[in-house]
Amino acid sequence: MKAFREMSKEELASQKEQLAAVYKEYQGKNLKLNMARGKPSPEQLDLTLPMLDVLNSKSDFMVEEGDVRNYGVLTGIHEAKVLMGDMMDAPADNVIMYGSASLTLMYDTVSRSYSHGVMGSTPWCKLDKVKFLCPVPGYDRHFAITEYFGIEMINIPMHDDGPDMDLVEKYVNNDEAVKGIWCVPQYSNPSGQSYSDEVVKRFANLKPAAKDFRIYWDNAYCVHHLNPEKPAHLLEILSECEKAGNPDMVYKFGSTAKVTFPGAGISAIATSKANIEDIKKQMNNQLISHDKINQLRHVRFFKDGAGLRAHMAKHAAILRPRFEAVDEILTRELDGLGIGTWTKPAGGYFVSFDAMEGCAKAIVARCKDAGVVMTGAGATYPYGKDPKDSNIRIAPSFPSLEELKLAAEIFCVCVKLVSAEKLLEA
Amino acid sequence: MKAFREMSKEELASQKEQLAAVYKEYQGKNLKLNMARGKPSPEQLDLTLPMLDVLNSKSDFMVEEGDVRNYGVLTGIHEAKVLMGDMMDAPADNVIMYGSASLTLMYDTVSRSYSHGVMGSTPWCKLDKVKFLCPVPGYDRHFAITEYFGIEMINIPMHDDGPDMDLVEKYVNNDEAVKGIWCVPQYSNPSGQSYSDEVVKRFANLKPAAKDFRIYWDNAYCVHHLNPEKPAHLLEILSECEKAGNPDMVYKFGSTAKVTFPGAGISAIATSKANIEDIKKQMNNQLISHDKINQLRHVRFFKDGAGLRAHMAKHAAILRPRFEAVDEILTRELDGLGIGTWTKPAGGYFVSFDAMEGCAKAIVARCKDAGVVMTGAGATYPYGKDPKDSNIRIAPSFPSLEELKLAAEIFCVCVKLVSAEKLLEA
Repeated sequence: MKAFREMSKEELASQKEQLAAVYKEYQGKNLKLNMARGKPSPEQLDLTLPMLDVLNSKSDFMVEEGDVRNYGVLTGIHEAKVLMGDMMDAPADNVIMYGSASLTLMYDTVSRSYSHGVMGSTPWCKLDKVKFLCPVPGYDRHFAITEYFGIEMINIPMHDDGPDMDLVEKYVNNDEAVKGIWCVPQYSNPSGQSYSDEVVKRFANLKPAAKDFRIYWDNAYCVHHLNPEKPAHLLEILSECEKAGNPDMVYKFGSTAKVTFPGAGISAIATSKANIEDIKKQMNNQLISHDKINQLRHVRFFKDGAGLRAHMAKHAAILRPRFEAVDEILTRELDGLGIGTWTKPAGGYFVSFDAMEGCAKAIVARCKDAGVVMTGAGATYPYGKDPKDSNIRIAPSFPSLEELKLAAEIFCVCVKLVSAEKLLEA
Repeated sequence: MKAFREMSKEELASQKEQLAAVYKEYQGKNLKLNMARGKPSPEQLDLTLPMLDVLNSKSDFMVEEGDVRNYGVLTGIHEAKVLMGDMMDAPADNVIMYGSASLTLMYDTVSRSYSHGVMGSTPWCKLDKVKFLCPVPGYDRHFAITEYFGIEMINIPMHDDGPDMDLVEKYVNNDEAVKGIWCVPQYSNPSGQSYSDEVVKRFANLKPAAKDFRIYWDNAYCVHHLNPEKPAHLLEILSECEKAGNPDMVYKFGSTAKVTFPGAGISAIATSKANIEDIKKQMNNQLISHDKINQLRHVRFFKDGAGLRAHMAKHAAILRPRFEAVDEILTRELDGLGIGTWTKPAGGYFVSFDAMEGCAKAIVARCKDAGVVMTGAGATYPYGKDPKDSNIRIAPSFPSLEELKLAAEIFCVCVKLVSAEKLLEA
């Protein structure tokens, strides 16, 4: 088929008619398919079931800090710090163990800065204006946190090697109101890029106007390679920041949400010792410790970083065919039509699709009416506002392969139908 | 022995000399005993070990909301709300499940009010002054939260039937800056009282000057009776508040910290539906759900409230001899000396001891030097300042019975020694 833009009005109208008929057929099937959220599939969850057997009524619960079943050990057990440090590429001494989700950890980090400041700086709630930089497209739940705290969000375009660093430097180095930037540095959510060494070095060498500026480095997909034998390379930012004389400038976040169980995993922050001391002052008022039994459960199950990576290879084997299926169907149905581009990520949980300008909302709405739930159009931008109404996040992980193929086919029909309508309007 | 105050200087000096010798002997033993924190003993923790076997690789993880192993269900699974509602004397629909500790839940509740207000009220961080009422003696971790947020704490004396309600009404009904009161209504920490029906009714009938005033009802010991066949009676405050036309005035907090595992249990808030909606708006930015696997683990283990109460009877059987031993030793060593009074609680985790004015710090210091760690004197008061330097919290739960007896004996020697010294100074 030729590109839609090269078609005559008549050709387009005929296309539209045919597509509308196919669409109607799908609608008649009362389907319930979901490509909205980055949820692991039941098959993936089954991989971690044996973890629930490693601690039981006969187990020994003693670790170097004492009995994990009782109160205490504010920052988590050392063995868990070693495991998470290995996963997050950070020394155990730079790790604080948190609760069952890194989202809560990130929220709490912003909340603490808002109410009490960062290392003695003015609490953000006492400032007239606080701003965060938001590489776009990005993760809606990051943006929800900053929006909730009334923080002004500034869009930063993503390039193939990471965020537009000229713009990042311009803002961070000149505007004291800029207190943070949200980053998913490896297999970015949703667009899948990993930051280049140059980008990481430029981050590390920022000269922030605000002393309390921090990089919110959410390395959510640090071990989530689709091809474990060809993992993405990411320069370690904590040590780069230290080399650059900015040891306290980064908070690294990680969790086992998509390693073990979403919402029932363990999470951690890795950062400088000075930041750790600052954070502990607050934590000491908020809790006695997070769930150390679950920490130990993870440690006993994986044993070490190698065990964790071997586990991730099993996830990859389940996820890879799903990503391949989506790419095959998009290629088959849309290649050469000039109405959409999409990413071919080497890891993470998403395919990012860019439709023609002004089409994303209509495509997602069409999908919904045919029983295919997608992430809301605009969700990948701060305030839910995609200025081009173009980006759609595809999450291939949760449905079965069969359902996923059907959902991807319906998605392609919707893309073509909406695009034809759009071009006919013009 | 006669009362210390009735002794002549010579008699006191002779007492002091004898006590100093006994004390020195204890010091020579290099003991390491601890009556500082309300930690369950290892025996108690063992009671819950079978809970770690109820969910395993062969289990079914489906509940009415779906698969507990995956994302979702912000406020927790219904079955857990039923269980915690039963424990906390509240309908399941009025319950939100939280994480592994109610301390974090209470912190987060204050933090949310500080950053975003309560049901649309001005966030506390935008106010010049926020005050909390603090019945004393009370729980140091409550006071730590309010102190951390710069909230002014006002001491309210505890009577046998609860806080001094004349004073509570005076403050709450007239001062708009008073936004909350910390309550442990049953087996109060540390003094062990349970609030009378009249006190609960006076709470429910408060006419707060501040619309965003809330009662922080930390019913930490709601099922923690030392004699399960004679549980304390506590009027249910949510429904009393509703009857009184103050449906939104109370947050009830509860957790299984001392039912299953401290720091690895489940916690919940029970409150009005309007408060629940208000809280959900914030939670939705902080998390996707708390650990639902642990919620289900608790549900499957206890089955229902009756199962939970049967479990608590086993705790009571372990705790009761410890409380009895402390009371026996204090009675044997101190009764009639006029240098201290103490509580005989019917539940909870503490014995509250009142020494002669100006003696608590010295007694705790003496204990420490003989290898017996007590909660810091003053900890039971806001800002760590006991105006009379008199109250000491005794936590009998953690040590073995043998260790506990020894610790209590040393404590009594310290009380007598410090009191004799004090009287000799006068």
